[in-house]
Amino acid sequence: MRIARFQDAAGAIRYGTPVDEEHALGLTGDLYAGLQETGEKVAVSKWLAPLTPVNIFGIGLNYRAHAQETGAKIPEHPVLFMKPTTAITDPGAPIVLPASCAHGPEVDYEAELGVVIGRTARDVPEARALEYVLGYTCANDVSARRWQKHGGAGQWVRGKGFDAFCPLGPTLVTTEEVPDPQALEVRCVLNGETMQTGHTSDMIFSIAQLIAYLSQDTTLLPGTLILTGTPPGVGFARTPPVFLADGDKVRIEIESIGALENPVRNAGA
Amino acid sequence: MRIARFQDAAGAIRYGTPVDEEHALGLTGDLYAGLQETGEKVAVSKWLAPLTPVNIFGIGLNYRAHAQETGAKIPEHPVLFMKPTTAITDPGAPIVLPASCAHGPEVDYEAELGVVIGRTARDVPEARALEYVLGYTCANDVSARRWQKHGGAGQWVRGKGFDAFCPLGPTLVTTEEVPDPQALEVRCVLNGETMQTGHTSDMIFSIAQLIAYLSQDTTLLPGTLILTGTPPGVGFARTPPVFLADGDKVRIEIESIGALENPVRNAGA
Repeated sequence: MRIARFQDAAGAIRYGTPVDEEHALGLTGDLYAGLQETGEKVAVSKWLAPLTPVNIFGIGLNYRAHAQETGAKIPEHPVLFMKPTTAITDPGAPIVLPASCAHGPEVDYEAELGVVIGRTARDVPEARALEYVLGYTCANDVSARRWQKHGGAGQWVRGKGFDAFCPLGPTLVTTEEVPDPQALEVRCVLNGETMQTGHTSDMIFSIAQLIAYLSQDTTLLPGTLILTGTPPGVGFARTPPVFLADGDKVRIEIESIGALENPVRNAGA
Repeated sequence: MRIARFQDAAGAIRYGTPVDEEHALGLTGDLYAGLQETGEKVAVSKWLAPLTPVNIFGIGLNYRAHAQETGAKIPEHPVLFMKPTTAITDPGAPIVLPASCAHGPEVDYEAELGVVIGRTARDVPEARALEYVLGYTCANDVSARRWQKHGGAGQWVRGKGFDAFCPLGPTLVTTEEVPDPQALEVRCVLNGETMQTGHTSDMIFSIAQLIAYLSQDTTLLPGTLILTGTPPGVGFARTPPVFLADGDKVRIEIESIGALENPVRNAGA
């Protein structure tokens, strides 16, 4: 099932399966307990991120070629950070460049496969980990590189936590439509030019390994979002570096999952 | 107002002002819109953490003497990390030592003043920042030191994010009862012995400065919890080091706010 969330003409927030850019087939019920088709075609006034996560975990340096381009060592354990849930941004909504990043370009894109947990997971073995996944979606782990590196004691949260730094969607694709999540191409296209190309088979830690790791002694609630790392081609590692600027269009494309596009705006623009 | 949350004899979750260890004066309404006294004395079956935060921000190295004991430089900006909301633990509930920390003692206490945001804050100037605070409570920023330091790329989230790693409460004390949050003594007492003593006047970044910083380009929703850093005396920096062990009792005491006590248990014990 392909699940989008949207506002209808009356402003109500609903789920549905997109049929074109302005319509969806209605879905009713609970995202985690199960949605059923209503058979009704609904006019969409605004597409929303497919969910508001309860917690957002991010994994750093999880593609070999990306770890190499940043000069980092191949990690022994998954590199774990978090983003606040307030960073979630709807498909099509602007990535606003923070005023506190205005002293010079530093805001970067990161195309990522987002994994949404569907039922409570704790101490889950790798072999059963994918049973806890509700579905997959496109995410952009937007990162302000100066704040990420120099914000304090090397902690990444400040540089990855500003409002609008987690575009998500447009569609959550449930697991039965994704037979192998480690066989997907991931791309980032900036103003029509492909900047990142990777394949989830290149992940250092597979999705099942990440869920097993994250759930060790830790409860993953339904609605937990895991950003699984980004392939090579990020802006700061390019020669010359590329950073997001007012007027840009960033598009995250994931094979079988969808495409997430967001414009970029200066704060106050 | 002193606000606790609890289960009553029927299992319903309620707010009230504690009168003794087993009773509270009932409060009704919304925690953020305002609670009113019911005049009713209610029997408490279980005290709960005063809230389930929407996001938990932690500040590292925010007391000069603690930054010095860890060997870290005095930070230029607040050092920002996050804990997942699943880490919240009720007063009196055990801090369970994670199975993934069983290869040797590493779990440490950190007494901290917890600040709860009461209304939506974004780009708040320091001079008005305390107007966005609902109240203050006691917190223990439990930390697994090996995971914190060696979990991957120096990121602290794994070491600070296990279940039960954020005891909170027992009482949220609203701002009108705390005329100056920078004039409070903070202590950690382990098995009756005082391990940490500090004073919020020793914070490098004041609570108002932290809220101004955190709200830059970032929305702090009602229910956001900020852990404001810990004073000197943490276990790993002591000679010899002290780590939490099965059977310990950890007590966080904050002047005018209260005392939060939790026993320590091995996983599976």
